[in-house]
Amino acid sequence: MTTTDRPGTTALPMPDLSGTFPGPFPTSPHADRIAEHVGRWLHRFPLLGPSDARHTLCDIVAHGVARTFPTAEPDGLFLCADLFLWLTAFDDTFGEATAAGSPARLVRRIQTCVHLLADGGPPDGADPFDEALQDLLVRLRTRATAAQYLRVTGCLRDVLFGMLWEAHHLAEPHHVTVRDYRAVRPHTVFVRTLVAMAEVVLRYELPDEARNSPAVRQPESAVADLAGVLNDLASYARESARGVPDSLNLVPLITREQHCDIPGAYAAASRLGEEYAATARHGIAALMTGDSAPLARHARALESIACSYAWHIDHARYRKG
Amino acid sequence: MTTTDRPGTTALPMPDLSGTFPGPFPTSPHADRIAEHVGRWLHRFPLLGPSDARHTLCDIVAHGVARTFPTAEPDGLFLCADLFLWLTAFDDTFGEATAAGSPARLVRRIQTCVHLLADGGPPDGADPFDEALQDLLVRLRTRATAAQYLRVTGCLRDVLFGMLWEAHHLAEPHHVTVRDYRAVRPHTVFVRTLVAMAEVVLRYELPDEARNSPAVRQPESAVADLAGVLNDLASYARESARGVPDSLNLVPLITREQHCDIPGAYAAASRLGEEYAATARHGIAALMTGDSAPLARHARALESIACSYAWHIDHARYRKG
Repeated sequence: MTTTDRPGTTALPMPDLSGTFPGPFPTSPHADRIAEHVGRWLHRFPLLGPSDARHTLCDIVAHGVARTFPTAEPDGLFLCADLFLWLTAFDDTFGEATAAGSPARLVRRIQTCVHLLADGGPPDGADPFDEALQDLLVRLRTRATAAQYLRVTGCLRDVLFGMLWEAHHLAEPHHVTVRDYRAVRPHTVFVRTLVAMAEVVLRYELPDEARNSPAVRQPESAVADLAGVLNDLASYARESARGVPDSLNLVPLITREQHCDIPGAYAAASRLGEEYAATARHGIAALMTGDSAPLARHARALESIACSYAWHIDHARYRKG
Repeated sequence: MTTTDRPGTTALPMPDLSGTFPGPFPTSPHADRIAEHVGRWLHRFPLLGPSDARHTLCDIVAHGVARTFPTAEPDGLFLCADLFLWLTAFDDTFGEATAAGSPARLVRRIQTCVHLLADGGPPDGADPFDEALQDLLVRLRTRATAAQYLRVTGCLRDVLFGMLWEAHHLAEPHHVTVRDYRAVRPHTVFVRTLVAMAEVVLRYELPDEARNSPAVRQPESAVADLAGVLNDLASYARESARGVPDSLNLVPLITREQHCDIPGAYAAASRLGEEYAATARHGIAALMTGDSAPLARHARALESIACSYAWHIDHARYRKG
């Protein structure tokens, strides 16, 4: 979600979402308050240096979360924005290229996070990332039910595993199939965490039977897949423009599996994105027209989560234009 | 729990638990039925070859779980035994030395497990470990509440992370402090998973406030630490007898941090074990004498979990004598 705000995004065809998730996307009236809040939170927990990158990240996260949950109250938005900021900063600081050089170092860094997620006490020599995570977990426990807390902390473990998975495969992407990548990508793009946070931020609870039904799981998966494709297409365009298009990304994986060139793979990925968007829209519409209030609420949350990922692309296009 | 059934265990001093967790340890009247069940389950999901090792593992897991939850009904015992067998077989097959040679391979193997734990559909080309895990998760979901399911699957993720952590550090134990090791060990010795399974197997539910209180967390941590020390002492003795004492283990970590020899480190670890046992017994007694039925039930479960780890040492001694 934070990686498309760069020139070059429109050099290759993005998915056409005008029939499925058309803008303009609703945003929260509290967007500016979120931006102020994350600025303060980042001052308390200095996860990033006082640079332009920090300012840009705060701005994108705040306005992204304002579109993810446009109807939410401020406290829930603040918690979600801080969590998203933590994940992004953790990945930028310890994941990806940094981790590829020494996966063991990333394993050690993640260890204290796992300890905190497993209800362990504060680690010795806690750094701002540990302290910020403790703060997030305390606030999450206060706001969420026991099951919601466990669902979100399960997702956070999966994100951390996804970062490890990426670190091990950046140098050897030939081991990665498109199917493998699709399985891990919803974790590393944080969309599963956002879906789990929806109930916490918006204060509703899905009945368990519904949660495990195809009617809910299918649109959740489609939104998750859509988020991954959108982020990958935008990231690939951005990284190509910078001359470093070799990261783990759907586009080069498709070129290898389908023996096609980059524009062909890009077009194939865009079509995939359109298919995911259509499936998501279909499933969301079905949930909205049913007679269950929490399911309709969940459907609206899935819709706005999809919109927030689509918004980032529009945002990048806007900046380019 | 399954690693002490070998000669050599008594060559170095084990912790004296006669004042804290004295035997004989109660066992389930269903122990033989558990052994028959795991034999059948392992026939359905061939996680191990048809060897003596398989027979020994089934026997130890069945009789270990019979002591872990001596008052439980058969279905709960079967689920717990199968889960423990899966974890042990997974670790034996993909973890430890195998994984140290290629952590990336272990990451890929774990990926499909994470996918299943995160409610993903059946992976392509599922092997017996994937199929067995799916079976376990379906049975767990049927038996457990939503929060219990999430708590156990959170623990399973932590076990898998612990295996990755070990794989990355077997070749470079100098990066590992005793404190780091103590943080990870409760996951890799599966004791946190057993504690989470107690409510599922014995069908009770701790109130959330109590769960997060020091009165509960302290004896849980002490039992977890005790389990790790007992397993490490027994494993170290066994592996020394085999001439391969270089695995990641508390004993050599203590020699390095305290600049002492092996008998000195062994004695220090034994004392640590006695301290954990005393703390555990104290906390368990306090919970038992309170007026909360689920807390007293949880205390009895913690007691029998500690006994089951202690039992393995007695078992090994018995076999040696």
